[in-house]
Amino acid sequence: MIITLLTDFGLKDNYVGVMKGVILSINPSISIIDISHSISPHNIKEAAFVLHNSYEYFPSKTVHVVVVDPGVGGRRKPIVVKTKKYFFVGPDNGVFTHIYENNAKVYEIKNSAHFLAEPSSTFHARDIFAPVAAHISKGVDVSQIGKKVSSYERFEIEKPEISEDKITGKIVYVDRFGNLVTNIPKDVITKKLSTILIKDEVIDKINDSYDESKKGTLLAIIGSTGNLEISVNQGSAKNFLNITEENLTNIKIYIII
Amino acid sequence: MIITLLTDFGLKDNYVGVMKGVILSINPSISIIDISHSISPHNIKEAAFVLHNSYEYFPSKTVHVVVVDPGVGGRRKPIVVKTKKYFFVGPDNGVFTHIYENNAKVYEIKNSAHFLAEPSSTFHARDIFAPVAAHISKGVDVSQIGKKVSSYERFEIEKPEISEDKITGKIVYVDRFGNLVTNIPKDVITKKLSTILIKDEVIDKINDSYDESKKGTLLAIIGSTGNLEISVNQGSAKNFLNITEENLTNIKIYIII
Amino acid sequence: MIITLLTDFGLKDNYVGVMKGVILSINPSISIIDISHSISPHNIKEAAFVLHNSYEYFPSKTVHVVVVDPGVGGRRKPIVVKTKKYFFVGPDNGVFTHIYENNAKVYEIKNSAHFLAEPSSTFHARDIFAPVAAHISKGVDVSQIGKKVSSYERFEIEKPEISEDKITGKIVYVDRFGNLVTNIPKDVITKKLSTILIKDEVIDKINDSYDESKKGTLLAIIGSTGNLEISVNQGSAKNFLNITEENLTNIKIYIII
Repeated sequence: MIITLLTDFGLKDNYVGVMKGVILSINPSISIIDISHSISPHNIKEAAFVLHNSYEYFPSKTVHVVVVDPGVGGRRKPIVVKTKKYFFVGPDNGVFTHIYENNAKVYEIKNSAHFLAEPSSTFHARDIFAPVAAHISKGVDVSQIGKKVSSYERFEIEKPEISEDKITGKIVYVDRFGNLVTNIPKDVITKKLSTILIKDEVIDKINDSYDESKKGTLLAIIGSTGNLEISVNQGSAKNFLNITEENLTNIKIYIII
Repeated sequence: MIITLLTDFGLKDNYVGVMKGVILSINPSISIIDISHSISPHNIKEAAFVLHNSYEYFPSKTVHVVVVDPGVGGRRKPIVVKTKKYFFVGPDNGVFTHIYENNAKVYEIKNSAHFLAEPSSTFHARDIFAPVAAHISKGVDVSQIGKKVSSYERFEIEKPEISEDKITGKIVYVDRFGNLVTNIPKDVITKKLSTILIKDEVIDKINDSYDESKKGTLLAIIGSTGNLEISVNQGSAKNFLNITEENLTNIKIYIII
Repeated sequence: MIITLLTDFGLKDNYVGVMKGVILSINPSISIIDISHSISPHNIKEAAFVLHNSYEYFPSKTVHVVVVDPGVGGRRKPIVVKTKKYFFVGPDNGVFTHIYENNAKVYEIKNSAHFLAEPSSTFHARDIFAPVAAHISKGVDVSQIGKKVSSYERFEIEKPEISEDKITGKIVYVDRFGNLVTNIPKDVITKKLSTILIKDEVIDKINDSYDESKKGTLLAIIGSTGNLEISVNQGSAKNFLNITEENLTNIKIYIII
């Protein structure tokens, strides 16, 4: 059995290590896998996107714990989400938005018998989410942990605009190499010899591999999420195009049909 | 059985990975958990504080390895500390100061049969501490590893000053979110409607949760260590108050009684 | 059984977590250990050096996965390297150069039955290397995975120049503490009271431990790789000598015999 962790806690502090101690104290035989702890602080949409591109690579019955939780200790509900194959544990603030696209049941966590004693108001990851996940991984039924709810938070997932002559997309994620992941899935791209526009740059086709383009050149490729990515062969598209956290959301990618 | 690792090695180099290889070569069935590897280089007090807030979340018999070790290869002793529930392995330089607050027996590591062959003088974590921890996790008695000593290094733990009209504390840790952890434990705080002073700022109560305060506002709250923390809702108190590594130790927090 | 991972993926993204999900889906009982994910992007020689100083600390039969792979999806072959004790999985671009110094058999990965379905062209770590490593860890014979090849990529390992009156070496790695690891192995250093020159600095002996030198002083020591290192006691030799990524490769270290 596996529990995965996806948070904005970083790796400087002991927060992730302590969550693991709590989990192993309850279920000593569990494997705990880090998906990432470097979500930008409080960035719910980024966590939702990373979860969306991660959870299906894990075996059936995996419990995915997601803690990006600016409202910790306040009115937002702690929840468990159950799908056909997986469990998800975290705050009800939209981090599970993509999961709700398929059939999912949502339970508000209620039963403090499955919490640490005297939960803090600042670290529910340690005091509520980790122990609840550990109990689920041991086979405790979600009906014993909380009660089913029909109302929960989700945000609108921005889809690309498709018109007669072009597809207009956005950048939804920038990775460590400076690859720009767009929200344009490969299914809507009808031909490889498309013209792609981003800022003042023109790219004249969609590559099959990075090295079809010269080192240092801007290129387009279907990335590992299945979406179009803008990249630079052995370089950073983020630096090439001067993409910053600030201008990121305003940049549009056009595929001319 | 679990071995935890807490070091200032960072995650850039192979140091942590190699320690794990050494441990698994001796005890293949052990679980190894990282508490943190981002202690500021050579910062013994920071490591001691993080250990203090971590070790009790792990199951009984866990072996905690702590390597912040500026004196590696020199005269400082390698030691094992044994408490009722846990073992601790590392250098005798004060990193276990908080552990000594309760009953603890200290052993100087002597028996090189439990080391890697030909230990280096720069990487005792790999050559001495990791293999010794692995042997302890397999049940080797500490009396076979070293001999009990009654003299060992510890530093003075700074407690808050409590006078008739105020409590005066210090910042002892800054986390990834910019929360400022003080040395003022919740037990000494008698009422929630206290006035708190830090630099030129006045905070008029202790919150029950972050979101009692507006986004971007400075607030006080009992944090996950059980001590008072100065925070900003969805922001960084460190940035808000211009806290740097340099001015950190001079800043005082006053609670007016 | 153990699989290790050594990549330039960083820990910001979900790439490493997803590789682990793929591995555990195939072999649920495997231990996965991170050697490092902070190799400088696309730096094959750095990965080769770190692998060289890591792999032998792991138990026999360990499968080492190395993915620093600027040519992913292009013409470079995916390979498995088999030595007497270990398996190595990754791209044929020189990352296994040091492994070839001893007896090693090299196999081009061919059998897509051991891949994820529909491999991407940008993330072979997830789609090819992780599942192949997992299958090897379960006992699948390399002859079922690919076919033996006699031609593969390797780079020339720079050895120090040894003349009558001096040894001339280079810096091959800089660690998190700013220690400068040279390519001069301890076997070629005949005496401890040697004069060492680096930039405009003179060091007059090789230390037995850091604390033989005063805090903040430049020193030479045999480091944990067995090679000469230039360090500063409780400081950074990198900062002391103003070493940058750019000037690094031009700096020479002389030991006067």
